Amino acid sequence: MTLKFEIIAECSHTGARLGKITTPRGEFETPFFMPVGTMGAVKAVHPSDLDLLGFKVILSNAFHLYLRPGHEIVNRVGGIHKFTGFQNGILTDSGGYQVFSLSDFRKITDEGVDFKSPIDGSMHFFSPQKVMEIQTALGSDFVMPLDECPSSVEDKTKVEMAVNRTIEWAKQSKVAFETLKQDHQSLFGIVQGGIYKDLRIECLDAINDIGFPAIALGGFAVGEDQHLMLDTIHELPALLPREKPRYLMGLGYPGDIVKTVALGMDMFDCVLPTRLGRTASAVTSTGRLNMKNSEYKDDPRPLDENCDCYVCKTYPRALVSHLAKQDNISGLMLLTYHNLAFYGRLMRDIRESLRRGEFKNFFDDYLNKVLIPGV
Amino acid sequence: MTLKFEIIAECSHTGARLGKITTPRGEFETPFFMPVGTMGAVKAVHPSDLDLLGFKVILSNAFHLYLRPGHEIVNRVGGIHKFTGFQNGILTDSGGYQVFSLSDFRKITDEGVDFKSPIDGSMHFFSPQKVMEIQTALGSDFVMPLDECPSSVEDKTKVEMAVNRTIEWAKQSKVAFETLKQDHQSLFGIVQGGIYKDLRIECLDAINDIGFPAIALGGFAVGEDQHLMLDTIHELPALLPREKPRYLMGLGYPGDIVKTVALGMDMFDCVLPTRLGRTASAVTSTGRLNMKNSEYKDDPRPLDENCDCYVCKTYPRALVSHLAKQDNISGLMLLTYHNLAFYGRLMRDIRESLRRGEFKNFFDDYLNKVLIPGV
Repeated sequence: MTLKFEIIAECSHTGARLGKITTPRGEFETPFFMPVGTMGAVKAVHPSDLDLLGFKVILSNAFHLYLRPGHEIVNRVGGIHKFTGFQNGILTDSGGYQVFSLSDFRKITDEGVDFKSPIDGSMHFFSPQKVMEIQTALGSDFVMPLDECPSSVEDKTKVEMAVNRTIEWAKQSKVAFETLKQDHQSLFGIVQGGIYKDLRIECLDAINDIGFPAIALGGFAVGEDQHLMLDTIHELPALLPREKPRYLMGLGYPGDIVKTVALGMDMFDCVLPTRLGRTASAVTSTGRLNMKNSEYKDDPRPLDENCDCYVCKTYPRALVSHLAKQDNISGLMLLTYHNLAFYGRLMRDIRESLRRGEFKNFFDDYLNKVLIPGV
Repeated sequence: MTLKFEIIAECSHTGARLGKITTPRGEFETPFFMPVGTMGAVKAVHPSDLDLLGFKVILSNAFHLYLRPGHEIVNRVGGIHKFTGFQNGILTDSGGYQVFSLSDFRKITDEGVDFKSPIDGSMHFFSPQKVMEIQTALGSDFVMPLDECPSSVEDKTKVEMAVNRTIEWAKQSKVAFETLKQDHQSLFGIVQGGIYKDLRIECLDAINDIGFPAIALGGFAVGEDQHLMLDTIHELPALLPREKPRYLMGLGYPGDIVKTVALGMDMFDCVLPTRLGRTASAVTSTGRLNMKNSEYKDDPRPLDENCDCYVCKTYPRALVSHLAKQDNISGLMLLTYHNLAFYGRLMRDIRESLRRGEFKNFFDDYLNKVLIPGV
């Protein structure tokens, strides 16, 4: 079966909606946020804790798992769920973004992309077909096609070329996927077009025509000005089919999530909460705290006085600061846990406000009172 | 109150005993093993998981907490339990062993030890009194006096000097502790003497005469031959007061724990399970596994097929191997968790066999069938 999506509630003042994606692996209420575990594990957090924190779907990466340990190995062990021990939903990104970001060597043609492994320098080739082979071998629930994600500051001609390739590759991906897929898998369509609204709309129309059960917006949060990004996103959801889940790729500032939920987006992913945790920063309701700052060394308060997570209920900032200063693994674990708890609660609060018909209040409160620059 | 100790059951074939230490913080059944969190946190494991794994007492280190963040800071935050978030028992080692192990600079006199901070090169002085000031400020439940722990290969004259200092310092420590202590704290006596039985007995008699509610054997597992160590330990427990807990410091091979429990030892600590976890080794019932070895890359089995811990129930060796090869924090977390689960179960099995009067069978089985070299 392909994924099913139903809308449970819609906000009457904004485009926000509460939905439910049903797959053979379970039901996942939207909007949801996916922690990122490119290598198959979200760093510094026990997979079992992800469930407790409210994350039913995580994001992994076909490029990384192709390079190490290899998709054949994951397949031989029994697929990505058995391999990672994560029994809920797993979305695999194609790795196109990672390949195009390689500084050492990559060459893009209409057929795909040649690249040099950043691990051992060996040469590899990703075609739309190859990327489907990898992800169907992995067995992830949500599969992303190879797309071309140009830098957001590229000129329009280059972005147009990328859009055309993305459309052509989407067609090829769909054909390959239909042949190779495991029953539980669903292939997403990806819309590119940078900050050019006409290109976005052109790409969106083409992706809609090809036909996918869910649509992703790619190529945002890749360096463009935030206002420009939100402005570009602004008009797109209205053009997306109402009855399909909408995934805004790679966007992760809490304020941006709230704003784009209001535009009708359903799925998010970002390295932010986990990466900040591993670099000693706490995401809190009063802003970001750099726990290496000496001001926290004898601070008996929890990381976030408005947080009810296990870390905030148990440990003083003084301990987290003490451990973070020494890059002690346990300090990074505590920060990662809290940051994910912050995101888990944000998404739960969004969903509950939608369920109660109070999203507009939540939205206004969040953006007027709670939102802190950088958070 | 000082700690209370009662014996619940004794093995009729060996010196092993099941006991219970009662403190204001709770009851701790012996024999128990203390995971080591020198900095106030056991690395790579959530403190809340320690409880689940059966560890009611952890070991921390006065020397490390004195240097960072400073015992005054820990005190200001509310003491070591509030600081670390660990609400069960905490034993603090004096740090003498760490100071004497400093390669850069340390000078021992009858008054104490001058040393250079390995962190910033600043000069410090530890006297028996100072070490009591630090630990009473920290507020740990079990306090260790400053002792001199000579290398196990030192000649007898040097070890004799160390024994005399240890005895003299024990007297001074007791006086200082009685003045400074918080009500819940108990001071242990430490017996030194290297591999020289007559010095051990001399030291033990003196420590008994001074009077402590619990006795530690220090200076083992510091480089001597294992048979020599066990041979030296062999006669000591019979000379220790039956009604006091006996702590064998720093000893941690599972086989050695089983052997010395049989000699009547009650408390253990060692960095082994956690350090091995962070260096990619799994302690299992069939031996130690180096998870960086490529043979595990597509192994679908759990780390230990005889283990019922969460890691073994959830993850294949293939994942742990994949993560360990990249020194991914999550890999070290999974290995640390499993290794601690192994130790937690070992101690539980020891206690249960004592409760059922079957320790001798357990002992024979363990040493004849289960014990693997290096485990």
